[in-house]
Amino acid sequence: MLGNFSYKNATKLYFGEDSLSYLNEELPRYGKNVVLIYGGGSIKKNGIYDDVLAILKANGKNVVEDGGVMPNPTADKLREGVKLARAHNADLLLAVGGGSCCDYAKAVSVSVHCDEDPWDKYFARFEEPDCEIVPVGCVLTMTGTGSEMNGGSVITNHDTHQKIGHVFGDEVMPKFAILNPRYTMSLPKRQMVAGIYDIFNHICEQYFSGEDDNVSDDLAEALMKSVIRNSLVAIEDPENYEARSNIMWAATWALNTLISRGKTTDWMVHMLGQAAGAYTDATHGMTLSAVSLPYYRHILPYGLQKFRRFAIGVWGVDAAGKTDEEIANAGLLAMEQWMRKLGVAMRLSELGATEDMIEGIADATIILKGGYKVLDRAEVIEILRKSL
Amino acid sequence: MLGNFSYKNATKLYFGEDSLSYLNEELPRYGKNVVLIYGGGSIKKNGIYDDVLAILKANGKNVVEDGGVMPNPTADKLREGVKLARAHNADLLLAVGGGSCCDYAKAVSVSVHCDEDPWDKYFARFEEPDCEIVPVGCVLTMTGTGSEMNGGSVITNHDTHQKIGHVFGDEVMPKFAILNPRYTMSLPKRQMVAGIYDIFNHICEQYFSGEDDNVSDDLAEALMKSVIRNSLVAIEDPENYEARSNIMWAATWALNTLISRGKTTDWMVHMLGQAAGAYTDATHGMTLSAVSLPYYRHILPYGLQKFRRFAIGVWGVDAAGKTDEEIANAGLLAMEQWMRKLGVAMRLSELGATEDMIEGIADATIILKGGYKVLDRAEVIEILRKSL
Repeated sequence: MLGNFSYKNATKLYFGEDSLSYLNEELPRYGKNVVLIYGGGSIKKNGIYDDVLAILKANGKNVVEDGGVMPNPTADKLREGVKLARAHNADLLLAVGGGSCCDYAKAVSVSVHCDEDPWDKYFARFEEPDCEIVPVGCVLTMTGTGSEMNGGSVITNHDTHQKIGHVFGDEVMPKFAILNPRYTMSLPKRQMVAGIYDIFNHICEQYFSGEDDNVSDDLAEALMKSVIRNSLVAIEDPENYEARSNIMWAATWALNTLISRGKTTDWMVHMLGQAAGAYTDATHGMTLSAVSLPYYRHILPYGLQKFRRFAIGVWGVDAAGKTDEEIANAGLLAMEQWMRKLGVAMRLSELGATEDMIEGIADATIILKGGYKVLDRAEVIEILRKSL
Repeated sequence: MLGNFSYKNATKLYFGEDSLSYLNEELPRYGKNVVLIYGGGSIKKNGIYDDVLAILKANGKNVVEDGGVMPNPTADKLREGVKLARAHNADLLLAVGGGSCCDYAKAVSVSVHCDEDPWDKYFARFEEPDCEIVPVGCVLTMTGTGSEMNGGSVITNHDTHQKIGHVFGDEVMPKFAILNPRYTMSLPKRQMVAGIYDIFNHICEQYFSGEDDNVSDDLAEALMKSVIRNSLVAIEDPENYEARSNIMWAATWALNTLISRGKTTDWMVHMLGQAAGAYTDATHGMTLSAVSLPYYRHILPYGLQKFRRFAIGVWGVDAAGKTDEEIANAGLLAMEQWMRKLGVAMRLSELGATEDMIEGIADATIILKGGYKVLDRAEVIEILRKSL
């Protein structure tokens, strides 16, 4: 059944090959001072930077640039960005990039008009924003995190070896987001598949929890099937617009709160992966893939019926003549085969993790309680060892 | 593939057994003058009227009542409602009822500050609102239309024998909606199943169009499967909260624009059903069920692959050893068996339609072009005859 909940998601999305032109419709809604946020500069090579800047200029905006947002945005970078946005009297934070840029923009947005240190306030103490929030818009150039239509923001603190996400409320969600599937085609394959696995795991995190019949789980299965089918096309033919557009749209709905309504969720793969990420600085999606199968095989006995449903409903496992355990395991085997076809990391050691980091990663792993088994420290260590 | 589109849906939803209490959070956002819109008075019998009025009074609202909204709200009633809301200087239109009340409230909302006749402007000439829109809130007591989270409004004009829907933009969508599955349990079974079929057909109308792979169609199948599964529980055990809550939430997502993003849609069953409704004043969902199978069997050869996919993906038809036509037909047969189990109307004659109305209903049927076959008049007549 569906538990009690509320739902609001007011982000305006423009999707498609012509979507950037709608920036002209959105910009007049905001004041003159825009902070243009971007990452390592790939947008300067593929022309998106020039296109966005031309639209900003045509709309008479006073633009300051905040480039160099790293794949795992740091607390130090966040503090700098807050200063910059404050000095610029920012009316709009326009993030052009992937989830990292969008996450970062949201963290800046809730900190510009706050005096406290943003890491301490939001990522150490998990406080909610109590000051004016600067509006955020996103032009998405890679897909995966769903950050374009949610209130989430993940920030990494290298001093404390922590990578922590704060899911803010709907007032922090981007006011608008521009999704052009063609932009995602310029990514190297490794980043594409990391994004695809991130999407898939977002759905798993919300699906592998709870026992009741729930329309949210039906929607989750639909998104998983679409991601699987289209990913197999995209790895053979990365320029396939049908595949890339379906993946991009599924990514948005995988993590914009819809499929978690009225049910519990897990998120332990993210806790394990983020802890590993804080130690290795590896690509987010790859840390998730490396820990997923050891984790899911560990919890399978506790959530047997859901893993059975997953096997049949998502992977088309033929149940005839098999025990529930056999069906459930066949589902995870099908998932493993798909992951290997994608070419995502299957072990943390591929990402630079070493045996001597295990204790530290375990310490950095936040233990959540929504999954089929609440892990103890020994289980975390065991799963990390099997993932190594 | 997904065509270009935009998406925004800012309705705040409160879902669950405690959801009415959130009316206390919403009311302070609006001015003092509230028009309380409701239907035939069933809310006075089941206590919802008293509960809502108590909250309105506790929030210091100046309430005027606009009751008696009929299942198919009329143009005449709409004109009266506009006058009432205008005289009351309405700051909020609060609809307490099913989709009819919510549809009606939206039609009033775009007309209070417009001088033109609302039927002529919005339902005859299909103009867009160009005057101030009065905010609408909904407390849903039956489920089916999805009106609580969309911009749609269907109004019937008995003078012209027309029942016409106008789908307004996101600015006309309700600002908030309160969805308590328990409220839907007080309905007679006939209304419950009419609502369930309405939900199912909303999904069909968006699904049976287009040939491409599209995540919207995956989501549509998920919603259909949930509706089918839960409806079979609800007809045996109408007080089953799990079933009723899933049906209610699926109804919202069946028609809040999500599953039509980036694809074409059909809506011919609604055109046929609404034309029949204008002649018979029958329950909306029943007019849809009565015309559905003759229509779908007629267009099946033109959309064979989609009907094949529907049979396997939604109804679990075993494809082994069957031709595509046999698979597709087996899907519609499974759908027919489910409809008979539900107890929805299988023929227009059950709803009071007679042979001599056929020509008139055909005249009132708007022919749309998004489906697998654009009907000509002879085909409309043939389908109506087979539905009789």
